[in-house]
Amino acid sequence: MIGIFDSGVGGMTVARAVETLLPEFQLIYYGDLARTPYGSKSPETITGYSIDNTEFLLNRGAKAIIIACNSAASIAAELLRQKFDVPIFEVITPAVDRAVSTTVSGNIGVIGTRATIRSNIYDEKIKQKAPQFRIYSQSCPLLVPLVEEGWLDSRETKMILRKYLAPLKQKNIDTLVLGCTHYPLLKDLIQHRMGRNKIRLIDSSIEVALTLKTHLEETAALRNLLSRGSDNRYFVSDITQAAINTAEKIFGRHIVLEKV
Amino acid sequence: MIGIFDSGVGGMTVARAVETLLPEFQLIYYGDLARTPYGSKSPETITGYSIDNTEFLLNRGAKAIIIACNSAASIAAELLRQKFDVPIFEVITPAVDRAVSTTVSGNIGVIGTRATIRSNIYDEKIKQKAPQFRIYSQSCPLLVPLVEEGWLDSRETKMILRKYLAPLKQKNIDTLVLGCTHYPLLKDLIQHRMGRNKIRLIDSSIEVALTLKTHLEETAALRNLLSRGSDNRYFVSDITQAAINTAEKIFGRHIVLEKV
Repeated sequence: MIGIFDSGVGGMTVARAVETLLPEFQLIYYGDLARTPYGSKSPETITGYSIDNTEFLLNRGAKAIIIACNSAASIAAELLRQKFDVPIFEVITPAVDRAVSTTVSGNIGVIGTRATIRSNIYDEKIKQKAPQFRIYSQSCPLLVPLVEEGWLDSRETKMILRKYLAPLKQKNIDTLVLGCTHYPLLKDLIQHRMGRNKIRLIDSSIEVALTLKTHLEETAALRNLLSRGSDNRYFVSDITQAAINTAEKIFGRHIVLEKV
Repeated sequence: MIGIFDSGVGGMTVARAVETLLPEFQLIYYGDLARTPYGSKSPETITGYSIDNTEFLLNRGAKAIIIACNSAASIAAELLRQKFDVPIFEVITPAVDRAVSTTVSGNIGVIGTRATIRSNIYDEKIKQKAPQFRIYSQSCPLLVPLVEEGWLDSRETKMILRKYLAPLKQKNIDTLVLGCTHYPLLKDLIQHRMGRNKIRLIDSSIEVALTLKTHLEETAALRNLLSRGSDNRYFVSDITQAAINTAEKIFGRHIVLEKV
């Protein structure tokens, strides 16, 4: 089965995209709610947690891993690929590929947590593919708590978004990468703020699911390993009402969270 | 020495008050930044973390413990008192005592994290002392992330505070308990919002330090156990620039954080 991990429930936007695009495969999710959030923690701590989470999924039978947390992906993906002998997908590379193929002006914006933006990974990966492009990054540390509070359409969230997005509005960007799996829940507000016909938003949750789909179409060996067993399962290291609410908001239906 | 723990650096407001009121005693601090925040987590998870933190401090030689996190104090104080054979102080009881002796109208407001407010502990403790009083509680989950971002005077913080405090402004309260050790950093904004001459704010950081001081004046045995050894030490389970900045804001000077 496909193993997906995130610092909390934000990565369920990835699980949902995988479920939609690849309904024939079983998935297992792990959300580290007992230690959430990751984006404000140090690289060493995020790396340690990413190893724990991957081991949990492999022990439960995962044959491929998706790192559904941009903070973890930005810091720990390479190390996880060296350490574990399974295909490891993550939310950053597919979003970078899409951004590079989408932009016309070559001016790309990226928003994410502090850990993701500090890692400079989007900048590096985009410049590897297109050294002439200009990348404008902005960390938006309060968006995750706002989403987790369910303040998806509040005046306060709009105001904070306006503050975070102001420097990006100054630049002539035509493409904006949502570099955190919580941000698709704010997609409409962000799109509205940046101008509906001016900016194309890149949703890393959808891009990683599309990449996995292509990979599975091309790779029979992995496809056979992953064939559907039983129902999808959603494990978490802590369970709260706020998490249950966010999960249901993402899936648009009731989701059983299992605490481990 | 005196051991103080918190989910992060907010509890340093307690350490600072203890340092100021009891400069002759050595203190050791533990901030669980690798798993912060606690206020949005479940009672079971918060209890487990509180046991870990107390054991860390006792192993380092603490002879008395202060739980400097309202979320942990509201959920785990009784269990820690049963489990460990040292005096355990916490931020709630002293604030309750002060609130009960301060109010004239008998209408008391309490603000805190979701875990603290859900636990209903302020309500119960105040009613034990004064069953006729009316308690109005409000959880303010975004204040901790706002403080940790250093947005101590931003328009957005003011707006969010206005939203949280609006229901309390409707009530005829004359006393408001700051039921989270991060909130003293927003004291001026809160005081301004609630009316400078109308509301007395209760700062649990100062109250717990005063309680400890009184206790030490009355209890020679504990006083002798705690006598000053060497310098105060500040341990954390993760270290980030934001934490360093908040620590310095609280102390008004450079603080060495030691990662363990």
